[in-house]
Amino acid sequence: MNKGLLIVYTGNGKGKTTAALGLALRAMGHDLRVCVIQFIKSNNDTGESLFSEEIKRLNKLFDFYVLGAGFTWSSAKLKNHVQAARDAWEISKELILSEKYDLIILDELTYIIRYKMVNEDEVINFLSKKPENLHLVITGRYASELLINAADLVTEMTEIKHPFKNGIRAQQGIDF
Amino acid sequence: MNKGLLIVYTGNGKGKTTAALGLALRAMGHDLRVCVIQFIKSNNDTGESLFSEEIKRLNKLFDFYVLGAGFTWSSAKLKNHVQAARDAWEISKELILSEKYDLIILDELTYIIRYKMVNEDEVINFLSKKPENLHLVITGRYASELLINAADLVTEMTEIKHPFKNGIRAQQGIDF
Repeated sequence: MNKGLLIVYTGNGKGKTTAALGLALRAMGHDLRVCVIQFIKSNNDTGESLFSEEIKRLNKLFDFYVLGAGFTWSSAKLKNHVQAARDAWEISKELILSEKYDLIILDELTYIIRYKMVNEDEVINFLSKKPENLHLVITGRYASELLINAADLVTEMTEIKHPFKNGIRAQQGIDF
Repeated sequence: MNKGLLIVYTGNGKGKTTAALGLALRAMGHDLRVCVIQFIKSNNDTGESLFSEEIKRLNKLFDFYVLGAGFTWSSAKLKNHVQAARDAWEISKELILSEKYDLIILDELTYIIRYKMVNEDEVINFLSKKPENLHLVITGRYASELLINAADLVTEMTEIKHPFKNGIRAQQGIDF
């Protein structure tokens, strides 16, 4: 039996969530059961979310939870964000322990640790005791030292060149 | 109409091919037509290759060309590698100009430039004149300065922590 890895994609460059989705595709090719939990994003019309609906017709398990409150960080809405983040973490814990999946992606979990929406020690402690065969992937900037220490594989994505700086806007199918 | 981007994922960290596959998944969610061309890898039993077969049943276009001669760099086989790489590049040019795809991934193209199996100037010149709406993704270590200059988006994946160093072997569904 494989050992389940704890994988972290961090850094300021593009490709973190995208790499996690690539793992999802590869895993589904081998009939692994995949779950994505998005902690910040709130939109259900991304390519990956739409794809998760369609792929059910192939009897692949690719469950997709969009649990964030979006990227609007106005102070009036901050309370909603904190509650959404805490709820998402509670749901994640259940899903991690459910044995329904071989690969679970905790997309942008790092932000809710960074902004102290959840207790870091509790999160790291829980992740360290994940089911042995389960692969867990965590994405987002600002991966903490504790998280990096707990991980098996850490890649930092660094921005070398970004198209938005040349006036090119975010594009369907590439950026979302 | 979107402007097609030239995207490069480079660096020594894991996640380059994986991020390209994530873009493929996202793009397919929006019904874009995707093609992957692998320049070095020679095995047809990766998760991504298996997935490309299955996805046809959803009427998605996800063509997958495994054109490499593998990772065995013995000098006796080097001639085969050079020929395989040149053939793959010729096929890529046709596919890029075919207008059959919205996204084409040239997986590990950087190596055949680095090892001078193809002429760098010719490659960069051709890529710079790609069809305007086509997104092109190039992966592999050692992306050259010319390639980075030609690209719209460049992310460097840096290895922070690698599980093989802790004695964990490559795993189906994650590494291939």
